Amino acid sequence: MTVLIHWFDLLGVMVFAISGTLIAHSKHMDGFGVVVLATVTGIGGGTLRDIILDVPVFWLHDTSYFIAIFGAIFISILFLNRQKQIPKQMLQVADAFGLAFFAVMGVQKALDIGMPDTTAIIMGVLTGCFGGVIRDVLAREIPLLLKGELYAITCILGGIIYTQLINLSFSLETAMLSAMSATLLLRLLAIRYNIVLHVFKYAN
Amino acid sequence: MTVLIHWFDLLGVMVFAISGTLIAHSKHMDGFGVVVLATVTGIGGGTLRDIILDVPVFWLHDTSYFIAIFGAIFISILFLNRQKQIPKQMLQVADAFGLAFFAVMGVQKALDIGMPDTTAIIMGVLTGCFGGVIRDVLAREIPLLLKGELYAITCILGGIIYTQLINLSFSLETAMLSAMSATLLLRLLAIRYNIVLHVFKYAN
Amino acid sequence: MTVLIHWFDLLGVMVFAISGTLIAHSKHMDGFGVVVLATVTGIGGGTLRDIILDVPVFWLHDTSYFIAIFGAIFISILFLNRQKQIPKQMLQVADAFGLAFFAVMGVQKALDIGMPDTTAIIMGVLTGCFGGVIRDVLAREIPLLLKGELYAITCILGGIIYTQLINLSFSLETAMLSAMSATLLLRLLAIRYNIVLHVFKYAN
Repeated sequence: MTVLIHWFDLLGVMVFAISGTLIAHSKHMDGFGVVVLATVTGIGGGTLRDIILDVPVFWLHDTSYFIAIFGAIFISILFLNRQKQIPKQMLQVADAFGLAFFAVMGVQKALDIGMPDTTAIIMGVLTGCFGGVIRDVLAREIPLLLKGELYAITCILGGIIYTQLINLSFSLETAMLSAMSATLLLRLLAIRYNIVLHVFKYAN
Repeated sequence: MTVLIHWFDLLGVMVFAISGTLIAHSKHMDGFGVVVLATVTGIGGGTLRDIILDVPVFWLHDTSYFIAIFGAIFISILFLNRQKQIPKQMLQVADAFGLAFFAVMGVQKALDIGMPDTTAIIMGVLTGCFGGVIRDVLAREIPLLLKGELYAITCILGGIIYTQLINLSFSLETAMLSAMSATLLLRLLAIRYNIVLHVFKYAN
Repeated sequence: MTVLIHWFDLLGVMVFAISGTLIAHSKHMDGFGVVVLATVTGIGGGTLRDIILDVPVFWLHDTSYFIAIFGAIFISILFLNRQKQIPKQMLQVADAFGLAFFAVMGVQKALDIGMPDTTAIIMGVLTGCFGGVIRDVLAREIPLLLKGELYAITCILGGIIYTQLINLSFSLETAMLSAMSATLLLRLLAIRYNIVLHVFKYAN
């Protein structure tokens, strides 16, 4: 089981690293700065989660994350240099996968050390969203997260499903895959149908 | 007494959450992004303080902060949706109240764990100012803090008054209320009379 | 030896504080905001390093860092107010010195607490680069680090040289001075000859 968790974690890091590389390319960054942006996007959310929970930061003693990041960057660069046109949705879809993996891993890690459900769900949001927020801040974009699309809210849904399935004594695998699928599905639907949540009435 | 501190802390979180909601509105953000911006503004400063002091982050085991944030957002949204014109000074005044509460709470928390006065005052500045800095960075504004107005310096004044009154054996309540009032007053005066501190001679 | 390390650390903080003041001036900031930007640039990288390594943050019990920062700001302001024209390279050179000092100090601190070489090198990058990244984010610049120039990569070189010399049982002093000189030299060459690393083929 912990092996499965580790693989999901590596996958999440990879897709976020890819999304970091894509945005670096779209902003005409170059060189090692691309590696830095990919790395920060890939491990930023989990790093903040571990700092706030005061547990050892997950990559301190595990170099496999950096191998994953370099692999992701290498694949992205190969792809970007062959391709003339980059499909616009690609960044959003890579981001959606990272979000789904990390949201659930974040909840799991907080539950592991005995945090209450509410805090665990917030940790999921933080793990899922924070890497992308740093990516957007460094690239001087308004973070995706703040634009009114369904974004953070998909992490909350995933977190609620996960904690409830665990409370109902479902297996860790079932809970994890269900919560990840739900988060991913809702996020992809939000991208596809441009679902926006309105809280303000702006004068038109 | 700890009850009083908790209430001041909740009040500080609420006014900063309101200031986050106001700026989200002025930037035409929407949906759950508003909640995220409000939350980050509300608890960002205290979270960084606790991380740096290496004490448990204050909201990990206490959900009342999130209830306070949601209350603040709800009130702001109701207000913003009724109002056509938003008074320009409102953001600054909400910010001033948050600054005054948090500056003093930050100093108090650092003194509690035996930090020297200087470090405690810096923790006050950090608690008071950092939430607003993240708010402005995410909304792509130059942080209020850096614009030359009396801002961080009002926190320092509050911190000095608080630590000195404590050293002179005044009661916690007296020290707290005096330091908060002084910080708030100086900040409101700075807003009203546009007091600016010059250190550079720019060629005109 | 620890005295030497402390002096290098103070020097690194000072040059970064100067670079923060210079950028604050170039952005027409003023007042205490300049002090804040200088402080964050000076101690931001080391603070993040200590938080991630979960060791006590270096300035909590040592006020000499703040004296160093205020000294650096005072010198910069005097200089900036006398000078009509500021040499354009000055910011980059101050930044290069800070980078060299901090990269090596970051590696050293991680090795001290028994981290593996890879993690130690990453800590060097983080200590060296992160202060400048916060500076650029707050001043709303695209961070130097992401622009494709040789920047983070000079820290990595310094880190590799340092860890290898230590592994080959060279003295701490030799390793430190060699690694700092190599980092500084490579960064200055990159500035002088505008060395850029390309990973993307952009269509022209």
